[in-house]
Amino acid sequence: MKIAMAQLNYHIGHFEHNMNKMLEALQTAKEQGADIVVFGELAVTGYPPRDFLEFNDFINQSEAAVVKLAEAAEGIAVVVGAPSRNPVVEGKDLFNTAFFLYEGKVLHKQHKALLPTYDVFDEYRYFEPATEFKVVEFKGRRIALSVCEDIWNVGNENPLYTICPLDEMQDQKPDFILNLSASPFNFEHADNRVNVLKANVARYHVPMFYVNHVGSQTELIFDGGSIVMSPNGNVFDEMPFFEECVRTYNLADVWQGKEHREQPSTKIALIHDALVMGIRDYFGKLGLKRAILGLSGGIDSAVVAVLAQRALGSANVRVLLMPSQFSSDHSINDARTLAQTINIQYDTIYIEDVFKSFEAALKTQFAGTKPEITEENIQARIRGMLLMAMSNKFGSILLNTSNKSEVAVGYGTLYGDMAGGLAVLGDVYKTEVYELARYINKDAEVIPNNSLVKPPSAELRPDQKDSDSLPPYDILDKVLYQYIEKRIGPKELIAMGFDEALVRRVLRLVNINEFKRAQMPPVLRVSSKSFGIGRRMPIVGRYLS
Amino acid sequence: MKIAMAQLNYHIGHFEHNMNKMLEALQTAKEQGADIVVFGELAVTGYPPRDFLEFNDFINQSEAAVVKLAEAAEGIAVVVGAPSRNPVVEGKDLFNTAFFLYEGKVLHKQHKALLPTYDVFDEYRYFEPATEFKVVEFKGRRIALSVCEDIWNVGNENPLYTICPLDEMQDQKPDFILNLSASPFNFEHADNRVNVLKANVARYHVPMFYVNHVGSQTELIFDGGSIVMSPNGNVFDEMPFFEECVRTYNLADVWQGKEHREQPSTKIALIHDALVMGIRDYFGKLGLKRAILGLSGGIDSAVVAVLAQRALGSANVRVLLMPSQFSSDHSINDARTLAQTINIQYDTIYIEDVFKSFEAALKTQFAGTKPEITEENIQARIRGMLLMAMSNKFGSILLNTSNKSEVAVGYGTLYGDMAGGLAVLGDVYKTEVYELARYINKDAEVIPNNSLVKPPSAELRPDQKDSDSLPPYDILDKVLYQYIEKRIGPKELIAMGFDEALVRRVLRLVNINEFKRAQMPPVLRVSSKSFGIGRRMPIVGRYLS
Repeated sequence: MKIAMAQLNYHIGHFEHNMNKMLEALQTAKEQGADIVVFGELAVTGYPPRDFLEFNDFINQSEAAVVKLAEAAEGIAVVVGAPSRNPVVEGKDLFNTAFFLYEGKVLHKQHKALLPTYDVFDEYRYFEPATEFKVVEFKGRRIALSVCEDIWNVGNENPLYTICPLDEMQDQKPDFILNLSASPFNFEHADNRVNVLKANVARYHVPMFYVNHVGSQTELIFDGGSIVMSPNGNVFDEMPFFEECVRTYNLADVWQGKEHREQPSTKIALIHDALVMGIRDYFGKLGLKRAILGLSGGIDSAVVAVLAQRALGSANVRVLLMPSQFSSDHSINDARTLAQTINIQYDTIYIEDVFKSFEAALKTQFAGTKPEITEENIQARIRGMLLMAMSNKFGSILLNTSNKSEVAVGYGTLYGDMAGGLAVLGDVYKTEVYELARYINKDAEVIPNNSLVKPPSAELRPDQKDSDSLPPYDILDKVLYQYIEKRIGPKELIAMGFDEALVRRVLRLVNINEFKRAQMPPVLRVSSKSFGIGRRMPIVGRYLS
Repeated sequence: MKIAMAQLNYHIGHFEHNMNKMLEALQTAKEQGADIVVFGELAVTGYPPRDFLEFNDFINQSEAAVVKLAEAAEGIAVVVGAPSRNPVVEGKDLFNTAFFLYEGKVLHKQHKALLPTYDVFDEYRYFEPATEFKVVEFKGRRIALSVCEDIWNVGNENPLYTICPLDEMQDQKPDFILNLSASPFNFEHADNRVNVLKANVARYHVPMFYVNHVGSQTELIFDGGSIVMSPNGNVFDEMPFFEECVRTYNLADVWQGKEHREQPSTKIALIHDALVMGIRDYFGKLGLKRAILGLSGGIDSAVVAVLAQRALGSANVRVLLMPSQFSSDHSINDARTLAQTINIQYDTIYIEDVFKSFEAALKTQFAGTKPEITEENIQARIRGMLLMAMSNKFGSILLNTSNKSEVAVGYGTLYGDMAGGLAVLGDVYKTEVYELARYINKDAEVIPNNSLVKPPSAELRPDQKDSDSLPPYDILDKVLYQYIEKRIGPKELIAMGFDEALVRRVLRLVNINEFKRAQMPPVLRVSSKSFGIGRRMPIVGRYLS
């Protein structure tokens, strides 16, 4: 028996696009001699469809697509994820289902039992968990179907769940396991995924075929890396990251487990490639091509400019240099050098005159006050406005360049440098931005070395340095990582050896700046805990603030 | 036996504040001769605590508060909601629990079974559902404790759930039922609540005491309206809306059911009072007093100014009039008249010079292009920047004045008129804004009548009217209501008699503007489906767009 896995880039709610992609992959699978072609979780709708699932019309369209796929399943079985209606009145209206389709018919439906409802996941908002677990028989083989999370509680070792779906099928003696996933990327996820599959085959002793999505959906990046796992624990094949892929495997070969093909997975390379795909898909799926951003001469905007140029091409990236009286010559030079190196269009607009016009407009109201952060914010907002004007005039998307460290502590201006359509580095700590810059420069000096070595500064007042307002980034990032990714509270942090005053100050800054983050653009997620939909904090709260 | 109900205004994560409030109410209850005092759901932490629940430190603080309350329960029992740890490894780490405390001890813990995970609710993200249901005995009575949603599946008639917690307790023959709630306001909710309690007493034939929160938590408004229900279906008492209240009831009187005291609940009056409290608490809980907003002479900003003045007092509300060359004289006059009527400080700042400075800055880049929406956005953003500058300089919060209709179809400028700390009217359709204005003017002309009768206009180009770009609001709002509140799709809308082209245009506008709403300030929720946390839509999606 031959099994084809189709790792595809879906578009949420774009039924026609998704259908055409699947029909094309089905054709490829047929040409490769496959008996079965397997797609990802909720492939018909794209993942995550979120509240579109609450529209009857949306489910109708999805059901029509499943019927069409069943009809296309001539001479080849199709295994595909889609929502299905719960016939029982009690409980949620839908299941998250793996359909087994063949020659116009639905041979089997296996619903998902473990519904992730944490971090970025809201599945219990929509779906009723499965209570029945049955293998499907096809061409003399018993096949266990499973959807994503259902293989993540091997031997009931995951404390989140009380049942283990594949255990429930063992008395039916499955010959192999198919898993339909939509498992979003973070830089540790590829390794976790391989380990979970190894644990599964160690328990069940049959081949596993794990099919993931690839492509980005607003903030969520799907890296692909679909896996064929032999019963001996060898990774028989791991599909490439960040690319579509359709490949057919001979079941007998997978049983033998002689091959071992894992993808390399080093943190910064993964983050780099994820962000490039994240930018490309955000633009592509919105039907737009051109990006604009402000280039300050600093490291953050330099990295975003390079990532954007790699995602969209030099012709589609344009930057503004917007010096004020506080900008240093080297900043302007560094920005210009970078723009020339990566061959993108740049314009220089001096903001001093606009700033003076604001001062004049507010002269009466501000009389007798001293310049402070208000005036710094005005400068940042003038730059945001100029960029948005370019974005509106020329139909481009403004890329936000804020990094995770400054977003965490609120070191940014709402509607100023926090503006944009997509926050490229919002899940990348400042220390990791430096690593990204060095990775970009590994073969040649793309980003001017000066941008890497000079002390970070917002340049909004004379001789300003980030270190005037913030702890050094190497310490700050460690505290933030523990508080944000690991949810470690103040007492435990102090017990770990962090300075008490520093801990209290940083945690307070994180908490009082929820209101700013609530108005941020979507953040491309590359860590296990990103700002946005996966981190839900009260804006008006008083814990640690 | 006497039962005190404490309808209090908690502050999320502010354990000390919440504790002091409860201790004070406990004292009042004692003075009123109560045997038991009942607080709301998760009263110890405030509701909703969201991801603070993932911090061990946060749960430790909550547990310490419960111990303190148990110690204070001398001569009076305390029934209070707080998270409790799940001792079983499998499943979620916490329960959402009603604690029965007396003389230093926890006499009983009843966990919540029905965990709302829809709309604004994410309870299954944090909590394991209860599987055990036991009454607690106190002074010879058997008391059924229940938490919020657990009374919302009377006789298993709610299709969302498969069990009915109070049914499970019936063989233990409870003498009365306590319900600890945190049930957010919408303008239909007060009536729904009374009906659900009636259905419960009709089934169980014992008195019910339903204790709700009051006060606002960012976007969620809790209206109070706690209810004592007699077994005969009479509302024995309904506590006031939008006020704290501690009252003690004699169980024997409630049994008799001779009293009937319901609060009036007319839609626009409720919305008015909810928004006033929403503004007041947002400021109060952030520790700020002063608001700023732009007054255009139109109806939306006029209504927000009045609500803000009622919430914060005239001395704390300041407005900017920011005319451009496209502003009509009557707009400026109407704005000035209103400011004078409600006695708030107003300043006039002409934006034309700032606009010219932007034109000059972008002269090279914009050469050869014609003025279009970009230039309109620049005007809106200059106003946003001036308001934010005032907000930053004087420590006030910018109130956003966008209404639900324009937010729905994206008729607003990101970082311009969509800016602010709180969107006061973001859940109020334009036609309802008019109703609010008429309600405000019911006794005297507070808002100039001219603002109510002139055709709505953004005044961003000569002779502009909203009706140039949008369908008439009375039709638009009907389509929006069906699509947003009722999740009715295009085919069904057309079948209902709406024009097909209109339906397609409106639904497309709603869907393609998710990116704008994703960066909006929090919206005070007054309907059953508000923009924000309760409505989760893909930004990059293609359904109906």
